[in-house]
Amino acid sequence: MSLLVVGTIGIDCIETPTQKRGDQLGGSASYFAYAASFYTKVHLISVVGRDFPSVHRTLLESRNVDLSGLQVLDGQTFRWTGRYHENMIDRDTLKVELNVFGTFDPQVPEHARRAEYVFLANGAPAVQRKVLHQMQRRPKFVAADTMDLWIETARPELEQLFKEVDAIILNDSEARMLTGRRELLRAGLDILELGPRIVIIKKGEHGALVVTQEGHFAVPGFPLEDVVDPTGAGDSFAGGIMGYLAESGDCSPASLRRAVAHGAVVASHTVQDF
Amino acid sequence: MSLLVVGTIGIDCIETPTQKRGDQLGGSASYFAYAASFYTKVHLISVVGRDFPSVHRTLLESRNVDLSGLQVLDGQTFRWTGRYHENMIDRDTLKVELNVFGTFDPQVPEHARRAEYVFLANGAPAVQRKVLHQMQRRPKFVAADTMDLWIETARPELEQLFKEVDAIILNDSEARMLTGRRELLRAGLDILELGPRIVIIKKGEHGALVVTQEGHFAVPGFPLEDVVDPTGAGDSFAGGIMGYLAESGDCSPASLRRAVAHGAVVASHTVQDF
Repeated sequence: MSLLVVGTIGIDCIETPTQKRGDQLGGSASYFAYAASFYTKVHLISVVGRDFPSVHRTLLESRNVDLSGLQVLDGQTFRWTGRYHENMIDRDTLKVELNVFGTFDPQVPEHARRAEYVFLANGAPAVQRKVLHQMQRRPKFVAADTMDLWIETARPELEQLFKEVDAIILNDSEARMLTGRRELLRAGLDILELGPRIVIIKKGEHGALVVTQEGHFAVPGFPLEDVVDPTGAGDSFAGGIMGYLAESGDCSPASLRRAVAHGAVVASHTVQDF
Repeated sequence: MSLLVVGTIGIDCIETPTQKRGDQLGGSASYFAYAASFYTKVHLISVVGRDFPSVHRTLLESRNVDLSGLQVLDGQTFRWTGRYHENMIDRDTLKVELNVFGTFDPQVPEHARRAEYVFLANGAPAVQRKVLHQMQRRPKFVAADTMDLWIETARPELEQLFKEVDAIILNDSEARMLTGRRELLRAGLDILELGPRIVIIKKGEHGALVVTQEGHFAVPGFPLEDVVDPTGAGDSFAGGIMGYLAESGDCSPASLRRAVAHGAVVASHTVQDF
């Protein structure tokens, strides 16, 4: 079944302790769509500027990603510059230029409004909900990511979003910030109370904890000898999960376990190079 | 099959962000023996002072732990005082009093020298080896724990020990210190080169990474709603692993996987109370 994602497409400049790369294809929707494209057809909803390099567009097209919902506007593409610490986990955002993303008004093309699986990548909860409300009917499975910024500045809209999705995907520090709980299982149980029936807490190299109404389980990170660039790991992880669910058409607890294991493996590929 | 452990028995004073407890039964051998006793017969080799409370001895006896190798010497029992940080992972050692443990000369009773499974809990590598050399024949499976202190101050003896054991159990920061590798899989592969055929890297609440000559696998930590006192988690983890291996008499890769999962579950019980 087809899968729709809304999120950022950006151009990244990334510094790790040993390397520096500019003009990388980045953004949550890019990483998600690329990963999920190995499982199913992906419709991508986002916006770029006139400067968006054709090589990046070609890469997504080569994965058969539907870009008819990708707006191209006068102006510059979203840009992110970040630097990873020695531990390759913590990072400092050195610069964010929203550019055309600052006024993003997502439009889902007619043919994509019947997608049964929807991923609302990290973005303003109001924008995430706007996409959801353009769907022709309630999709079979909706998951949303979020981040500290929205927890701090848009809590009411975020809580409204939580009531409209099946799954929330967020990282460990965000789960703790949202709930004030140190133990992630406790945090996950608290988030269930806010509406979603599945909470997927990402723990970076340590894998993920999944808390559902039926029970919880942990999946370790796939062990790697080398991590070159962690950027996009979380969105690739989500891409593996949603891609697997959409391809199988099965959202049962057993299928969810397999999906999360797929996500962990897909993310392990992402971090092994820029 | 029977299992022998050498290590500390101590009296702990523990502060967590919310509670403080004095005169707790502590020490690596105590936690290990208590955990392993649910699987098999355990012989405990250690030393205490005349002040060792009978209630602690009774607790170990109630688990049928063989204390005939527990020396009681004039003087005070080993004491440790520590304080956990808000994250319940990092801790400061406020006070260590070695007391009778400072001159510990382990003696394995005759009947325990035929134990087929041996765990050398954290201690001076020279003392760990002394126990190994008292065994009647090479045991079927020997595992050793170690710590930063010995990596820094007794590296040659430690490397000698590595050549004489089947498995090394150590935590993530120690594996990184020992090898200078950030990625734990890489660290584990480096440690294999030093002699052991199995390296078990503990990651606290995140579980463990096991690296062997045949391959590697990760086991997540058992998710918990509440962690009350993390003291002894690593030794209980080892107790579950070694207890399972000794009880099954099977040290195959498949059995090792099951053993590590048992260790994770046993450790999860330990941390839920003082």
